[in-house]
Amino acid sequence: MERSLIDSIASALPVGGGGSRIVRGVGDDAAVVRSGGTLCVISVDAMVEGVHFRLDDGSSSPFDVGWRAVAGALSDLAAMGAAAGEAYIALGVSAAVGEERALEVIRGAVEIAAATGTVLAGGDVVSAPVLTVSVTVVGWAEHERELIGRDGARVGDLVGVTGRLGGRPPRPIPRLAEGQVLARAGAHAMIDLSDGLASDARAIGERSGLCLQVELERLPLDAGVFGSELAATAGEDYELCFTVPAGARAGVEDALRNADGAQVTWVGLVVEGTPGVSFLDEHGDKRRLEGYEHHW
Amino acid sequence: MERSLIDSIASALPVGGGGSRIVRGVGDDAAVVRSGGTLCVISVDAMVEGVHFRLDDGSSSPFDVGWRAVAGALSDLAAMGAAAGEAYIALGVSAAVGEERALEVIRGAVEIAAATGTVLAGGDVVSAPVLTVSVTVVGWAEHERELIGRDGARVGDLVGVTGRLGGRPPRPIPRLAEGQVLARAGAHAMIDLSDGLASDARAIGERSGLCLQVELERLPLDAGVFGSELAATAGEDYELCFTVPAGARAGVEDALRNADGAQVTWVGLVVEGTPGVSFLDEHGDKRRLEGYEHHW
Repeated sequence: MERSLIDSIASALPVGGGGSRIVRGVGDDAAVVRSGGTLCVISVDAMVEGVHFRLDDGSSSPFDVGWRAVAGALSDLAAMGAAAGEAYIALGVSAAVGEERALEVIRGAVEIAAATGTVLAGGDVVSAPVLTVSVTVVGWAEHERELIGRDGARVGDLVGVTGRLGGRPPRPIPRLAEGQVLARAGAHAMIDLSDGLASDARAIGERSGLCLQVELERLPLDAGVFGSELAATAGEDYELCFTVPAGARAGVEDALRNADGAQVTWVGLVVEGTPGVSFLDEHGDKRRLEGYEHHW
Repeated sequence: MERSLIDSIASALPVGGGGSRIVRGVGDDAAVVRSGGTLCVISVDAMVEGVHFRLDDGSSSPFDVGWRAVAGALSDLAAMGAAAGEAYIALGVSAAVGEERALEVIRGAVEIAAATGTVLAGGDVVSAPVLTVSVTVVGWAEHERELIGRDGARVGDLVGVTGRLGGRPPRPIPRLAEGQVLARAGAHAMIDLSDGLASDARAIGERSGLCLQVELERLPLDAGVFGSELAATAGEDYELCFTVPAGARAGVEDALRNADGAQVTWVGLVVEGTPGVSFLDEHGDKRRLEGYEHHW
Protein backbone atom coordinates (compact mmCIF):
# COMPACT_ATOMS: atom_id res chain seq x y z
CA MET A 1 0.00 0.00 0.00
CA GLU A 2 1.15 3.54 -0.75
CA ARG A 3 3.15 5.16 2.00
CA SER A 4 1.29 8.42 1.34
CA LEU A 5 -2.04 6.86 2.35
CA ILE A 6 -0.55 5.55 5.58
CA ASP A 7 0.80 9.01 6.37
CA SER A 8 -2.52 10.64 5.50
CA ILE A 9 -4.36 8.23 7.77
CA ALA A 10 -1.99 8.97 10.65
CA SER A 11 -2.64 12.69 10.05
CA ALA A 12 -6.41 12.14 10.05
CA LEU A 13 -6.31 10.77 13.59
CA PRO A 14 -6.99 13.31 16.34
CA VAL A 15 -3.82 14.73 17.85
CA GLY A 16 -3.50 13.85 21.52
CA GLY A 17 -6.76 11.96 21.27
CA GLY A 18 -5.23 8.94 22.89
CA GLY A 19 -6.36 9.67 26.39
CA SER A 20 -4.59 8.26 29.38
CA ARG A 21 -5.18 4.61 28.50
CA ILE A 22 -3.00 4.63 25.37
CA VAL A 23 0.64 3.88 26.14
CA ARG A 24 1.66 3.40 22.49
CA GLY A 25 -0.57 4.16 19.51
CA VAL A 26 -0.12 4.37 15.76
CA GLY A 27 3.46 3.93 14.56
CA ASP A 28 4.61 0.85 16.42
CA ASP A 29 4.23 -2.89 15.80
CA ALA A 30 1.22 -2.94 18.07
CA ALA A 31 -0.83 -0.56 20.17
CA VAL A 32 -0.39 -0.72 23.93
CA VAL A 33 -3.30 0.11 26.21
CA ARG A 34 -3.17 0.28 29.99
CA SER A 35 -6.09 -1.26 31.84
CA GLY A 36 -5.98 -1.49 35.59
CA GLY A 37 -2.68 -3.09 36.47
CA THR A 38 -2.06 -4.75 33.09
CA LEU A 39 -1.04 -3.73 29.62
CA CYS A 40 -3.00 -4.92 26.63
CA VAL A 41 -1.00 -5.16 23.39
CA ILE A 42 -3.04 -5.27 20.16
CA SER A 43 -2.18 -5.62 16.50
CA VAL A 44 -4.28 -6.02 13.34
CA ASP A 45 -3.09 -7.65 10.10
CA ALA A 46 -5.03 -8.27 6.91
CA MET A 47 -4.25 -10.65 4.03
CA VAL A 48 -6.10 -10.57 0.73
CA GLU A 49 -6.23 -13.22 -2.01
CA GLY A 50 -4.53 -12.02 -5.17
CA VAL A 51 -2.53 -9.46 -3.19
CA HIS A 52 -0.78 -11.38 -0.41
CA PHE A 53 -1.35 -14.93 -1.61
CA ARG A 54 -2.88 -16.93 -4.44
CA LEU A 55 -5.04 -19.99 -4.15
CA ASP A 56 -5.83 -20.53 -7.84
CA ASP A 57 -2.29 -21.50 -8.85
CA GLY A 58 -1.77 -23.72 -5.84
CA SER A 59 1.06 -21.54 -4.48
CA SER A 60 -0.77 -21.25 -1.15
CA SER A 61 -3.10 -23.70 0.56
CA PRO A 62 -6.05 -22.35 2.57
CA PHE A 63 -4.53 -23.98 5.66
CA ASP A 64 -1.26 -22.09 5.13
CA VAL A 65 -3.17 -18.83 4.57
CA GLY A 66 -4.87 -19.15 7.96
CA TRP A 67 -1.59 -20.10 9.61
CA ARG A 68 0.34 -17.22 8.05
CA ALA A 69 -2.34 -14.63 8.81
CA VAL A 70 -2.31 -15.50 12.52
CA ALA A 71 1.47 -15.99 12.60
CA GLY A 72 2.00 -12.60 10.98
CA ALA A 73 -0.19 -10.85 13.53
CA LEU A 74 1.43 -12.71 16.44
CA SER A 75 4.81 -11.66 15.08
CA ASP A 76 3.84 -8.06 15.88
CA LEU A 77 3.31 -9.07 19.51
CA ALA A 78 6.67 -10.83 19.47
CA ALA A 79 8.26 -7.61 18.25
CA MET A 80 6.89 -5.81 21.32
CA GLY A 81 8.11 -8.50 23.71
CA ALA A 82 4.51 -9.31 24.68
CA ALA A 83 3.09 -12.69 25.60
CA ALA A 84 0.44 -13.98 23.19
CA GLY A 85 -3.13 -14.02 24.43
CA GLU A 86 -6.08 -14.19 22.06
CA ALA A 87 -6.73 -13.98 18.32
CA TYR A 88 -9.88 -12.84 16.49
CA ILE A 89 -10.47 -13.46 12.78
CA ALA A 90 -12.68 -11.56 10.34
CA LEU A 91 -13.00 -13.91 7.39
CA GLY A 92 -14.25 -12.79 3.99
CA VAL A 93 -15.28 -15.83 1.95
CA SER A 94 -15.98 -15.84 -1.80
CA ALA A 95 -18.24 -18.31 -3.56
CA ALA A 96 -15.16 -19.61 -5.41
CA VAL A 97 -13.43 -20.37 -2.12
CA GLY A 98 -16.44 -22.09 -0.60
CA GLU A 99 -17.12 -23.47 2.84
CA GLU A 100 -14.63 -26.32 2.92
CA ARG A 101 -11.64 -24.15 2.06
CA ALA A 102 -12.85 -21.43 4.44
CA LEU A 103 -12.81 -24.05 7.16
CA GLU A 104 -9.26 -25.02 6.16
CA VAL A 105 -8.25 -21.40 6.77
CA ILE A 106 -9.70 -21.65 10.28
CA ARG A 107 -7.94 -24.98 10.84
CA GLY A 108 -4.61 -23.40 9.91
CA ALA A 109 -5.34 -20.53 12.26
CA VAL A 110 -6.27 -22.91 15.07
CA GLU A 111 -3.05 -24.89 14.54
CA ILE A 112 -0.63 -21.98 14.85
CA ALA A 113 -2.74 -20.56 17.69
CA ALA A 114 -2.41 -23.83 19.59
CA ALA A 115 1.33 -24.01 18.86
CA THR A 116 1.84 -20.57 20.42
CA GLY A 117 -0.61 -20.81 23.33
CA THR A 118 -2.98 -18.35 21.67
CA VAL A 119 -6.74 -18.74 22.03
CA LEU A 120 -8.91 -18.13 18.96
CA ALA A 121 -11.67 -16.33 20.83
CA GLY A 122 -14.03 -14.90 18.22
CA GLY A 123 -14.53 -13.34 14.85
CA ASP A 124 -16.85 -12.55 12.01
CA VAL A 125 -17.60 -14.26 8.70
CA VAL A 126 -18.84 -12.29 5.72
CA SER A 127 -19.16 -12.73 1.97
CA ALA A 128 -16.39 -11.12 -0.07
CA PRO A 129 -15.19 -11.17 -3.69
CA VAL A 130 -11.94 -12.92 -2.70
CA LEU A 131 -10.67 -14.69 0.41
CA THR A 132 -9.83 -12.02 2.97
CA VAL A 133 -8.34 -12.80 6.37
CA SER A 134 -8.10 -10.02 8.89
CA VAL A 135 -6.57 -11.04 12.21
CA THR A 136 -6.53 -9.14 15.48
CA VAL A 137 -4.21 -10.44 18.15
CA VAL A 138 -4.12 -9.44 21.77
CA GLY A 139 -1.11 -9.92 24.00
CA TRP A 140 -0.47 -9.06 27.58
CA ALA A 141 2.31 -7.64 29.72
CA GLU A 142 2.58 -6.61 33.34
CA HIS A 143 4.91 -3.63 33.09
CA GLU A 144 5.68 -1.03 30.48
CA ARG A 145 9.39 -1.79 30.75
CA GLU A 146 8.67 -5.32 29.43
CA LEU A 147 7.52 -3.90 26.10
CA ILE A 148 9.95 -2.70 23.44
CA GLY A 149 8.95 -0.19 20.78
CA ARG A 150 10.61 0.86 17.56
CA ASP A 151 11.74 4.19 18.95
CA GLY A 152 14.31 3.30 21.58
CA ALA A 153 17.52 2.73 19.58
CA ARG A 154 20.59 4.63 20.85
CA VAL A 155 23.90 5.56 19.26
CA GLY A 156 26.38 2.71 19.65
CA ASP A 157 23.71 0.00 19.90
CA LEU A 158 24.40 -3.23 18.07
CA VAL A 159 21.81 -4.28 15.48
CA GLY A 160 20.84 -7.95 15.67
CA VAL A 161 18.50 -10.26 13.82
CA THR A 162 17.14 -13.65 14.82
CA GLY A 163 17.22 -16.73 12.59
CA ARG A 164 17.82 -16.61 8.85
CA LEU A 165 16.44 -14.19 6.29
CA GLY A 166 14.80 -14.46 2.88
CA GLY A 167 13.29 -17.91 3.29
CA ARG A 168 9.64 -16.83 3.40
CA PRO A 169 8.47 -20.08 5.02
CA PRO A 170 4.87 -21.09 4.26
CA ARG A 171 4.31 -21.75 7.94
CA PRO A 172 6.40 -19.21 9.83
CA ILE A 173 6.70 -19.46 13.60
CA PRO A 174 6.43 -16.06 15.27
CA ARG A 175 9.39 -15.41 17.55
CA LEU A 176 7.29 -14.88 20.67
CA ALA A 177 9.71 -16.47 23.14
CA GLU A 178 12.66 -14.65 21.57
CA GLY A 179 10.81 -11.33 21.75
CA GLN A 180 10.23 -11.70 25.47
CA VAL A 181 13.81 -12.85 26.10
CA LEU A 182 15.22 -9.91 24.10
CA ALA A 183 12.98 -7.46 25.96
CA ARG A 184 14.18 -8.78 29.30
CA ALA A 185 17.81 -8.86 28.13
CA GLY A 186 17.73 -5.14 27.51
CA ALA A 187 16.78 -4.56 23.86
CA HIS A 188 16.32 -0.83 23.19
CA ALA A 189 14.23 -1.15 20.02
CA MET A 190 12.64 -4.08 18.20
CA ILE A 191 10.56 -4.82 15.09
CA ASP A 192 9.54 -7.94 13.21
CA LEU A 193 10.61 -8.50 9.61
CA SER A 194 7.24 -8.56 7.92
CA ASP A 195 8.07 -6.14 5.12
CA GLY A 196 11.78 -7.01 4.91
CA LEU A 197 14.83 -5.63 6.66
CA ALA A 198 15.13 -2.63 4.29
CA SER A 199 11.72 -1.34 5.40
CA ASP A 200 11.64 -2.62 8.93
CA ALA A 201 15.10 -1.55 10.06
CA ARG A 202 14.37 1.81 8.46
CA ALA A 203 11.29 2.09 10.67
CA ILE A 204 13.42 1.64 13.80
CA GLY A 205 15.88 4.25 12.49
CA GLU A 206 13.18 6.75 11.58
CA ARG A 207 11.30 6.35 14.82
CA SER A 208 14.49 6.57 16.86
CA GLY A 209 15.88 9.53 14.91
CA LEU A 210 19.06 7.58 14.15
CA CYS A 211 20.60 5.50 11.38
CA LEU A 212 20.89 1.71 11.49
CA GLN A 213 24.06 0.93 9.53
CA VAL A 214 23.75 -2.66 8.32
CA GLU A 215 26.53 -4.65 6.62
CA LEU A 216 24.95 -6.67 3.84
CA GLU A 217 27.55 -9.44 3.95
CA ARG A 218 26.71 -10.15 7.58
CA LEU A 219 23.06 -10.97 6.88
CA PRO A 220 22.28 -14.59 7.79
CA LEU A 221 20.80 -16.00 4.58
CA ASP A 222 18.29 -18.80 4.65
CA ALA A 223 19.31 -21.95 2.81
CA GLY A 224 18.49 -21.48 -0.86
CA VAL A 225 18.60 -17.70 -0.70
CA PHE A 226 21.34 -16.24 -2.89
CA GLY A 227 22.16 -12.60 -2.44
CA SER A 228 21.97 -10.43 0.66
CA GLU A 229 19.95 -7.80 -1.15
CA LEU A 230 17.14 -10.25 -1.69
CA ALA A 231 17.33 -11.24 1.98
CA ALA A 232 17.17 -7.58 2.96
CA THR A 233 14.12 -6.78 0.84
CA ALA A 234 12.12 -10.01 1.08
CA GLY A 235 9.20 -9.72 3.45
CA GLU A 236 7.42 -12.25 5.62
CA ASP A 237 10.52 -13.58 7.31
CA TYR A 238 8.91 -12.89 10.67
CA GLU A 239 12.33 -12.81 12.29
CA LEU A 240 13.08 -10.04 14.78
CA CYS A 241 15.40 -7.09 14.23
CA PHE A 242 16.50 -5.31 17.39
CA THR A 243 19.11 -3.02 18.86
CA VAL A 244 20.92 -3.58 22.16
CA PRO A 245 23.66 -1.72 23.98
CA ALA A 246 27.06 -3.16 23.00
CA GLY A 247 27.61 -4.36 26.56
CA ALA A 248 24.52 -6.55 26.44
CA ARG A 249 25.82 -8.65 23.52
CA ALA A 250 26.97 -11.69 25.49
CA GLY A 251 23.97 -11.51 27.80
CA VAL A 252 21.58 -11.53 24.85
CA GLU A 253 23.32 -14.51 23.25
CA ASP A 254 23.26 -16.43 26.52
CA ALA A 255 19.64 -15.61 27.26
CA LEU A 256 18.49 -16.76 23.81
CA ARG A 257 20.55 -19.95 24.08
CA ASN A 258 19.14 -20.71 27.54
CA ALA A 259 15.61 -20.23 26.21
CA ASP A 260 16.30 -22.59 23.28
CA GLY A 261 15.65 -19.56 21.12
CA ALA A 262 16.75 -18.72 17.60
CA GLN A 263 20.37 -17.83 16.94
CA VAL A 264 21.19 -14.14 16.81
CA THR A 265 23.41 -12.54 14.16
CA TRP A 266 24.93 -9.11 14.69
CA VAL A 267 24.53 -7.22 11.45
CA GLY A 268 25.31 -3.60 12.19
CA LEU A 269 25.50 -0.53 14.40
CA VAL A 270 23.29 2.40 15.33
CA VAL A 271 24.96 5.67 14.32
CA GLU A 272 24.12 9.36 13.98
CA GLY A 273 22.95 10.34 10.52
CA THR A 274 19.85 10.59 8.39
CA PRO A 275 17.21 8.67 10.34
CA GLY A 276 16.53 5.33 8.69
CA VAL A 277 18.71 2.49 7.51
CA SER A 278 21.90 2.44 5.53
CA PHE A 279 23.23 -0.72 3.88
CA LEU A 280 26.96 -1.18 3.29
CA ASP A 281 28.30 -3.67 0.76
CA GLU A 282 31.50 -5.70 1.16
CA HIS A 283 33.58 -2.68 0.14
CA GLY A 284 31.96 -0.48 2.74
CA ASP A 285 30.03 1.40 0.03
CA LYS A 286 26.42 2.43 0.60
CA ARG A 287 23.74 0.48 -1.23
CA ARG A 288 20.26 1.75 -1.72
CA LEU A 289 17.54 -0.87 -1.17
CA GLU A 290 13.84 -0.25 -1.58
CA GLY A 291 11.27 -1.70 0.71
CA TYR A 292 7.66 -0.93 1.39
CA GLU A 293 5.67 -0.28 4.53
CA HIS A 294 2.04 -0.96 5.13
CA HIS A 295 1.38 -0.71 8.86
CA TRP A 296 0.09 2.26 10.78
CA MET B 1 -23.16 -15.85 5.38
CA GLU B 2 -24.38 -19.42 5.64
CA ARG B 3 -25.25 -20.53 9.12
CA SER B 4 -23.65 -23.91 8.40
CA LEU B 5 -20.21 -22.29 7.95
CA ILE B 6 -20.55 -20.44 11.26
CA ASP B 7 -21.46 -23.70 12.97
CA SER B 8 -18.58 -25.53 11.30
CA ILE B 9 -16.15 -22.85 12.40
CA ALA B 10 -17.37 -23.06 15.99
CA SER B 11 -16.86 -26.84 15.80
CA ALA B 12 -13.34 -26.40 14.41
CA LEU B 13 -12.25 -24.50 17.52
CA PRO B 14 -10.61 -26.58 20.23
CA VAL B 15 -13.04 -27.67 22.95
CA GLY B 16 -12.12 -26.22 26.31
CA GLY B 17 -9.20 -24.48 24.68
CA GLY B 18 -10.16 -21.20 26.22
CA GLY B 19 -7.89 -21.40 29.19
CA SER B 20 -8.57 -19.49 32.35
CA ARG B 21 -8.42 -16.03 30.77
CA ILE B 22 -11.53 -16.50 28.62
CA VAL B 23 -14.72 -15.52 30.45
CA ARG B 24 -16.93 -15.60 27.34
CA GLY B 25 -15.83 -16.88 23.94
CA VAL B 26 -17.52 -17.66 20.64
CA GLY B 27 -21.31 -17.31 20.70
CA ASP B 28 -21.84 -13.94 22.34
CA ASP B 29 -21.79 -10.36 21.06
CA ALA B 30 -18.20 -10.05 22.10
CA ALA B 31 -15.49 -12.12 23.72
CA VAL B 32 -14.61 -11.36 27.33
CA VAL B 33 -11.09 -11.91 28.58
CA ARG B 34 -9.89 -11.47 32.14
CA SER B 35 -6.58 -9.74 32.62
CA GLY B 36 -5.42 -8.91 36.09
CA GLY B 37 -8.26 -7.10 37.78
CA THR B 38 -10.03 -5.98 34.61
CA LEU B 39 -12.16 -7.51 31.90
CA CYS B 40 -11.36 -6.86 28.28
CA VAL B 41 -14.36 -7.08 25.92
CA ILE B 42 -13.55 -7.54 22.22
CA SER B 43 -15.60 -7.74 19.06
CA VAL B 44 -14.72 -7.90 15.35
CA ASP B 45 -16.99 -6.77 12.50
CA ALA B 46 -16.27 -6.71 8.78
CA MET B 47 -18.05 -4.80 6.01
CA VAL B 48 -17.44 -5.44 2.32
CA GLU B 49 -18.32 -3.26 -0.68
CA GLY B 50 -20.96 -4.90 -2.84
CA VAL B 51 -22.09 -7.06 0.09
CA HIS B 52 -22.84 -4.67 2.96
CA PHE B 53 -22.81 -1.38 1.09
CA ARG B 54 -22.42 0.11 -2.37
CA LEU B 55 -20.36 3.12 -3.33
CA ASP B 56 -20.89 3.03 -7.10
CA ASP B 57 -24.61 3.94 -6.98
CA GLY B 58 -24.11 6.62 -4.34
CA SER B 59 -26.25 4.77 -1.78
CA SER B 60 -23.38 4.96 0.73
CA SER B 61 -20.68 7.59 1.11
CA PRO B 62 -17.18 6.48 2.18
CA PHE B 63 -17.61 8.61 5.33
CA ASP B 64 -20.80 6.74 6.26
CA VAL B 65 -19.12 3.40 5.59
CA GLY B 66 -16.36 4.22 8.09
CA TRP B 67 -18.91 5.49 10.60
CA ARG B 68 -21.17 2.44 10.27
CA ALA B 69 -18.32 -0.05 10.45
CA VAL B 70 -17.12 1.39 13.76
CA ALA B 71 -20.66 1.99 15.06
CA GLY B 72 -21.62 -1.60 14.26
CA ALA B 73 -18.64 -2.99 16.15
CA LEU B 74 -19.22 -0.65 19.12
CA SER B 75 -22.83 -1.81 19.19
CA ASP B 76 -21.55 -5.26 20.16
CA LEU B 77 -19.83 -3.70 23.18
CA ALA B 78 -23.07 -1.87 24.02
CA ALA B 79 -24.87 -5.22 23.94
CA MET B 80 -22.50 -6.55 26.60
CA GLY B 81 -22.90 -3.48 28.81
CA ALA B 82 -19.21 -2.63 28.35
CA ALA B 83 -17.65 0.83 28.17
CA ALA B 84 -16.03 1.64 24.83
CA GLY B 85 -12.25 1.78 24.75
CA GLU B 86 -10.28 1.49 21.52
CA ALA B 87 -10.93 0.68 17.87
CA TYR B 88 -8.57 -0.82 15.27
CA ILE B 89 -9.30 -0.83 11.53
CA ALA B 90 -8.01 -3.14 8.82
CA LEU B 91 -8.77 -1.29 5.61
CA GLY B 92 -8.74 -2.97 2.20
CA VAL B 93 -8.54 -0.32 -0.51
CA SER B 94 -9.16 -0.91 -4.23
CA ALA B 95 -7.70 1.20 -7.04
CA ALA B 96 -11.27 2.27 -7.90
CA VAL B 97 -11.81 3.58 -4.37
CA GLY B 98 -8.51 5.42 -4.26
CA GLU B 99 -6.73 7.31 -1.53
CA GLU B 100 -9.12 10.21 -1.05
CA ARG B 101 -12.16 8.02 -0.48
CA ALA B 102 -10.14 5.67 1.73
CA LEU B 103 -9.33 8.70 3.88
CA GLU B 104 -13.02 9.59 3.99
CA VAL B 105 -13.67 6.14 5.48
CA ILE B 106 -11.10 6.89 8.19
CA ARG B 107 -12.66 10.33 8.79
CA GLY B 108 -16.07 8.71 9.32
CA ALA B 109 -14.50 6.22 11.70
CA VAL B 110 -12.73 8.99 13.61
CA GLU B 111 -15.99 10.95 13.91
CA ILE B 112 -18.08 8.19 15.49
CA ALA B 113 -15.09 7.17 17.61
CA ALA B 114 -14.84 10.72 18.97
CA ALA B 115 -18.62 10.88 19.55
CA THR B 116 -18.46 7.76 21.71
CA GLY B 117 -15.18 8.37 23.53
CA THR B 118 -13.45 5.62 21.57
CA VAL B 119 -9.80 5.96 20.55
CA LEU B 120 -8.78 4.81 17.07
CA ALA B 121 -5.52 3.25 18.14
CA GLY B 122 -4.15 1.37 15.14
CA GLY B 123 -4.78 -0.71 12.09
CA ASP B 124 -3.55 -2.01 8.79
CA VAL B 125 -4.02 -0.87 5.19
CA VAL B 126 -3.82 -3.31 2.31
CA SER B 127 -4.80 -3.47 -1.34
CA ALA B 128 -8.06 -5.31 -2.03
CA PRO B 129 -10.42 -5.81 -4.98
CA VAL B 130 -13.18 -3.82 -3.24
CA LEU B 131 -13.36 -1.55 -0.19
CA THR B 132 -13.21 -3.76 2.89
CA VAL B 133 -13.47 -2.41 6.42
CA SER B 134 -12.77 -4.75 9.30
CA VAL B 135 -13.10 -3.18 12.73
CA THR B 136 -11.96 -4.55 16.06
CA VAL B 137 -13.27 -2.78 19.13
CA VAL B 138 -12.09 -3.20 22.68
CA GLY B 139 -14.18 -2.30 25.69
CA TRP B 140 -13.52 -2.55 29.37
CA ALA B 141 -15.37 -3.54 32.52
CA GLU B 142 -14.36 -3.97 36.14
CA HIS B 143 -16.55 -6.89 37.15
CA GLU B 144 -18.09 -9.87 35.42
CA ARG B 145 -21.49 -8.95 36.82
CA GLU B 146 -21.38 -5.70 34.80
CA LEU B 147 -21.39 -7.67 31.56
CA ILE B 148 -24.55 -9.19 30.11
CA GLY B 149 -24.44 -12.11 27.69
CA ARG B 150 -27.08 -13.63 25.45
CA ASP B 151 -27.56 -16.66 27.64
CA GLY B 152 -29.10 -15.30 30.82
CA ALA B 153 -32.83 -14.96 29.97
CA ARG B 154 -35.21 -16.54 32.49
CA VAL B 155 -38.84 -17.63 32.31
CA GLY B 156 -41.13 -14.68 33.06
CA ASP B 157 -38.61 -12.05 31.95
CA LEU B 158 -39.96 -9.12 29.98
CA VAL B 159 -38.47 -8.57 26.54
CA GLY B 160 -37.58 -4.94 25.80
CA VAL B 161 -36.07 -3.02 22.91
CA THR B 162 -34.56 0.45 22.83
CA GLY B 163 -35.49 3.15 20.32
CA ARG B 164 -37.31 2.43 17.06
CA LEU B 165 -36.83 -0.39 14.61
CA GLY B 166 -36.47 -0.72 10.85
CA GLY B 167 -35.00 2.72 10.16
CA ARG B 168 -31.50 1.57 9.20
CA PRO B 169 -29.94 5.00 9.78
CA PRO B 170 -26.83 5.79 7.68
CA ARG B 171 -25.08 7.03 10.81
CA PRO B 172 -26.33 4.85 13.66
CA ILE B 173 -25.32 5.72 17.22
CA PRO B 174 -24.40 2.63 19.22
CA ARG B 175 -26.41 2.40 22.46
CA LEU B 176 -23.35 2.33 24.70
CA ALA B 177 -24.81 4.35 27.57
CA GLU B 178 -28.07 2.39 27.42
CA GLY B 179 -26.19 -0.91 27.46
CA GLN B 180 -24.38 0.02 30.65
CA VAL B 181 -27.56 1.35 32.27
CA LEU B 182 -29.47 -1.83 31.37
CA ALA B 183 -26.68 -4.02 32.70
CA ARG B 184 -26.70 -2.16 36.03
CA ALA B 185 -30.50 -2.15 36.16
CA GLY B 186 -30.53 -5.93 36.15
CA ALA B 187 -30.87 -7.11 32.54
CA HIS B 188 -30.56 -10.89 32.34
CA ALA B 189 -29.70 -11.14 28.64
CA MET B 190 -28.91 -8.59 25.95
CA ILE B 191 -28.03 -8.40 22.24
CA ASP B 192 -27.81 -5.65 19.65
CA LEU B 193 -30.05 -5.64 16.60
CA SER B 194 -27.46 -5.94 13.87
CA ASP B 195 -29.14 -8.74 11.94
CA GLY B 196 -32.71 -7.82 12.89
CA LEU B 197 -34.94 -8.84 15.78
CA ALA B 198 -35.95 -12.13 14.14
CA SER B 199 -32.33 -13.34 14.20
CA ASP B 200 -31.09 -11.53 17.25
CA ALA B 201 -33.94 -12.30 19.65
CA ARG B 202 -33.69 -15.89 18.45
CA ALA B 203 -30.02 -15.89 19.47
CA ILE B 204 -30.98 -14.91 23.05
CA GLY B 205 -33.66 -17.62 23.08
CA GLU B 206 -31.38 -20.31 21.72
CA ARG B 207 -28.50 -19.45 24.01
CA SER B 208 -30.81 -19.26 27.04
CA GLY B 209 -32.68 -22.45 26.17
CA LEU B 210 -36.00 -20.57 26.24
CA CYS B 211 -38.43 -18.89 23.87
CA LEU B 212 -38.78 -15.14 23.46
CA GLN B 213 -42.45 -14.59 22.62
CA VAL B 214 -42.66 -11.26 20.82
CA GLU B 215 -45.92 -9.47 19.87
CA LEU B 216 -45.45 -7.96 16.43
CA GLU B 217 -47.93 -5.13 16.98
CA ARG B 218 -45.92 -3.88 19.95
CA LEU B 219 -42.76 -3.28 17.93
CA PRO B 220 -41.81 0.41 17.93
CA LEU B 221 -41.55 1.24 14.23
CA ASP B 222 -39.25 3.94 13.00
CA ALA B 223 -40.93 6.80 11.13
CA GLY B 224 -41.38 5.72 7.54
CA VAL B 225 -41.34 2.01 8.31
CA PHE B 226 -44.61 0.30 7.47
CA GLY B 227 -45.14 -3.21 8.74
CA SER B 228 -43.84 -4.84 11.88
CA GLU B 229 -42.49 -7.78 9.92
CA LEU B 230 -40.08 -5.51 8.10
CA ALA B 231 -39.04 -3.96 11.39
CA ALA B 232 -38.46 -7.42 12.83
CA THR B 233 -36.31 -8.63 9.96
CA ALA B 234 -34.45 -5.46 8.96
CA GLY B 235 -30.87 -5.45 10.21
CA GLU B 236 -28.54 -2.66 11.21
CA ASP B 237 -30.91 -0.98 13.64
CA TYR B 238 -28.22 -1.19 16.30
CA GLU B 239 -30.88 -0.90 18.98
CA LEU B 240 -30.65 -3.23 21.98
CA CYS B 241 -32.95 -6.16 22.74
CA PHE B 242 -32.85 -7.40 26.32
CA THR B 243 -34.73 -9.35 28.94
CA VAL B 244 -35.30 -8.22 32.53
CA PRO B 245 -37.22 -9.69 35.45
CA ALA B 246 -40.79 -8.33 35.48
CA GLY B 247 -40.14 -6.58 38.78
CA ALA B 248 -37.34 -4.51 37.24
CA ARG B 249 -39.61 -2.87 34.67
CA ALA B 250 -40.10 0.48 36.39
CA GLY B 251 -36.49 0.59 37.55
CA VAL B 252 -35.26 0.06 33.99
CA GLU B 253 -37.51 2.80 32.63
CA ASP B 254 -36.39 5.22 35.34
CA ALA B 255 -32.72 4.42 34.91
CA LEU B 256 -32.85 4.98 31.14
CA ARG B 257 -34.78 8.22 31.60
CA ASN B 258 -32.30 9.49 34.20
CA ALA B 259 -29.43 8.70 31.84
CA ASP B 260 -31.13 10.57 28.99
CA GLY B 261 -31.18 7.23 27.25
CA ALA B 262 -33.39 5.88 24.48
CA GLN B 263 -36.98 5.00 25.25
CA VAL B 264 -37.70 1.35 25.99
CA THR B 265 -40.64 -0.57 24.55
CA TRP B 266 -41.78 -3.85 26.10
CA VAL B 267 -42.46 -6.23 23.26
CA GLY B 268 -42.84 -9.67 24.78
CA LEU B 269 -42.18 -12.34 27.37
CA VAL B 270 -39.72 -15.15 27.95
CA VAL B 271 -41.53 -18.50 28.11
CA GLU B 272 -40.76 -22.21 28.10
CA GLY B 273 -40.81 -23.76 24.64
CA THR B 274 -38.62 -24.43 21.64
CA PRO B 275 -35.51 -22.30 22.23
CA GLY B 276 -35.53 -19.27 19.98
CA VAL B 277 -38.06 -16.60 19.17
CA SER B 278 -41.74 -16.77 18.42
CA PHE B 279 -43.64 -13.88 16.85
CA LEU B 280 -47.36 -13.42 17.49
CA ASP B 281 -49.57 -11.32 15.20
CA GLU B 282 -52.49 -9.17 16.35
CA HIS B 283 -54.73 -12.27 16.59
CA GLY B 284 -52.24 -14.06 18.80
CA ASP B 285 -51.29 -16.40 15.91
CA LYS B 286 -47.67 -17.41 15.37
CA ARG B 287 -45.84 -15.85 12.43
CA ARG B 288 -42.70 -17.30 11.00
CA LEU B 289 -40.04 -14.70 10.18
CA GLU B 290 -36.69 -15.48 8.61
CA GLY B 291 -33.51 -13.76 9.63
CA TYR B 292 -29.88 -14.53 9.17
CA GLU B 293 -26.92 -14.70 11.50
CA HIS B 294 -23.32 -14.04 10.70
CA HIS B 295 -21.42 -13.71 13.96
CA TRP B 296 -19.49 -16.37 15.77
